[in-house]
Amino acid sequence: MSGDLAFIVRAQDSASSARVGEMQLSRGTVQTPVFMPVGTYGAVKTLTPHEVRDLGAQVVLSNTYHLYLRPGLELVTRFGGLHRFMGWDGPLLTDSGGYQIFSLAGMRKIDDAGVSFRSHLDGSEHHFTPEKIIDLQRGLGSDFVMVLDECPPGDAPLKAWRTAVERTTRWAQRSLARFRETEPRYGHPQYPVCIVQGGSDPGLRRRSVEELLELDTPLYAVGGLAVGEPREELFATLELLDQLLPRDRPRYLMGVGTPADLVRAVARGMDMFDCVLPTRNARNGQLFTAQGTLTIRNARYRDDLDPVMEDCDCLLCAHFNRAYLRHLFNTKETLGLRLATVHNLKFYFGLMAAMRAAIADGRFPAWSRAYLQTYEEQTDE
Amino acid sequence: MSGDLAFIVRAQDSASSARVGEMQLSRGTVQTPVFMPVGTYGAVKTLTPHEVRDLGAQVVLSNTYHLYLRPGLELVTRFGGLHRFMGWDGPLLTDSGGYQIFSLAGMRKIDDAGVSFRSHLDGSEHHFTPEKIIDLQRGLGSDFVMVLDECPPGDAPLKAWRTAVERTTRWAQRSLARFRETEPRYGHPQYPVCIVQGGSDPGLRRRSVEELLELDTPLYAVGGLAVGEPREELFATLELLDQLLPRDRPRYLMGVGTPADLVRAVARGMDMFDCVLPTRNARNGQLFTAQGTLTIRNARYRDDLDPVMEDCDCLLCAHFNRAYLRHLFNTKETLGLRLATVHNLKFYFGLMAAMRAAIADGRFPAWSRAYLQTYEEQTDE
Repeated sequence: MSGDLAFIVRAQDSASSARVGEMQLSRGTVQTPVFMPVGTYGAVKTLTPHEVRDLGAQVVLSNTYHLYLRPGLELVTRFGGLHRFMGWDGPLLTDSGGYQIFSLAGMRKIDDAGVSFRSHLDGSEHHFTPEKIIDLQRGLGSDFVMVLDECPPGDAPLKAWRTAVERTTRWAQRSLARFRETEPRYGHPQYPVCIVQGGSDPGLRRRSVEELLELDTPLYAVGGLAVGEPREELFATLELLDQLLPRDRPRYLMGVGTPADLVRAVARGMDMFDCVLPTRNARNGQLFTAQGTLTIRNARYRDDLDPVMEDCDCLLCAHFNRAYLRHLFNTKETLGLRLATVHNLKFYFGLMAAMRAAIADGRFPAWSRAYLQTYEEQTDE
Repeated sequence: MSGDLAFIVRAQDSASSARVGEMQLSRGTVQTPVFMPVGTYGAVKTLTPHEVRDLGAQVVLSNTYHLYLRPGLELVTRFGGLHRFMGWDGPLLTDSGGYQIFSLAGMRKIDDAGVSFRSHLDGSEHHFTPEKIIDLQRGLGSDFVMVLDECPPGDAPLKAWRTAVERTTRWAQRSLARFRETEPRYGHPQYPVCIVQGGSDPGLRRRSVEELLELDTPLYAVGGLAVGEPREELFATLELLDQLLPRDRPRYLMGVGTPADLVRAVARGMDMFDCVLPTRNARNGQLFTAQGTLTIRNARYRDDLDPVMEDCDCLLCAHFNRAYLRHLFNTKETLGLRLATVHNLKFYFGLMAAMRAAIADGRFPAWSRAYLQTYEEQTDE
């Protein structure tokens, strides 16, 4: 199974587990570490796919649960898959929908068969099994196919995490069986991704990895982190997983995180990331800069004729200043959402490129130390 | 006064009053007939100024009343004027704010001195005089400066229209006096525009024109139309004004209109237009096409893989189809608002360019007859 995906480690940091890798996919080569922007409904909010590409995106993530509800799989398959539906011809990763469904508090029921839930849109009832989640992603035609897992909240008792690990393994077995029985529909290979669960418990994490390694998938994802647990547990867990997961396959840390989180996770051998932070925070008027975050609605920017970030050549910083962006947010002009999204994504992609360069040039230890020190000294205004 | 603006009529249709003209301004040459998109708060909604330019905009309209409230004139002058504030280096026209204020039913009081009103945002009290409106536009630095006029609703009694004409003349006199006493602040000439009032009454229109011609402004605008009166009165009034207004100066028909309205108004000698129709309707999901309007939320487009309009090379039609655009509107993705805005503006600018070419080539009579016939046969779905 793993032989399908060509993943080459191009450079390895000597002082940490950070590495530069290359995944060769039918829709393009992906340089890792890679940050995947979120395009929930088949669009990275406010942007065209061409803009997303030009900003530096290599892989886009989209949400199976949301696309299943709207526009529905039938329409996407009529287009010939999600790539053609959304106009993105690069690699796509679709999630399993599990995380969204588990967030539907009071509107879902989980048992071994799968998960029943009510749509957050109209309350209609639906049932997802591990097999159905695979079928949906065969229909979407995503390059990376996530299996259904169970992810409890960060403060769940150990017993809940144990149940989740056991169920995640059983569901992964069923998912992979279905994956093997089915074929890609649009002529491009698809790669299944198992999700390691177990919260912050080393024993459960070890067990989850061992059970999932038997399934021999070409990539492994780390779920169940950044779900409310203390920050130090996140990094301790990553250090353990870095030891347990095979080094010849990409590791995907789901739903993380801040710029500093990304640097620390890369140092711990993680290769792929997704997070709504740059895009969602942009729409809330929070901009990431080399000098810390900047909340553009703040009155201090009313007369500020400086760009959001010096030495940034994005569409926002090259042509507009803080006072104008603040005005756009104050007057609810959607151009503001878009300019802020452009800037934050460029910032994130720039950070990943900087990490790749630092690792390749053998200067990641000094680079990451300096970056994190600067980051710690910043206070969000 | 009129000598300041170089307006050259390049071509005159033989069968109608349609003409192609050229206005030479310090910020660029404007080919007429011209459609001016509306950028209320210093942004054409969803678009960057570079995109507005690339779509074919020659002049952008912005709203003095809105900019006065947010961000306020002090900030705009700190930028060095509205052009630099919004990042648009082409010609700008700012309105007088009168139309917006007169729409604040129950929140404004008019007398000869000027107009008192409460902000639609926070209820704060403000007072505009004809002189203050000029001062504000000196501060904005717009290329075309509209004088304060009084515009009653379309169903107002004749007496109200007479009062409005008389007041509009007195206010225009005061406005021009202030205009002459003051200077442009940013090194570019500004051109004042008087507004002919009088509703659909030929006598009042004649009187308004005669009184305003004494002020000898380089452009004349036609207000008080498309305010609820029957359509045939609009065109009859334009035919009268075409006879009365000097042919050597541009005529600006305010707030009009549909594609067919524009063709009919050009045939009646009008040169400049503004309207929220293409941009506002775009955001409501109504697209203009050569085959009529198309309401994208309509269920009939759910599976429609055709572009919104054949032979359109706009960002929307070149890359996306109806079903995807409908999906964006259904999921409230702001990318949909933007793609629809791009298409509608391109359609409007394309219409103006087609008219200019038809007039210049001596085929406007046949072109406009065919256009209007096709238009009449279309039914909005």
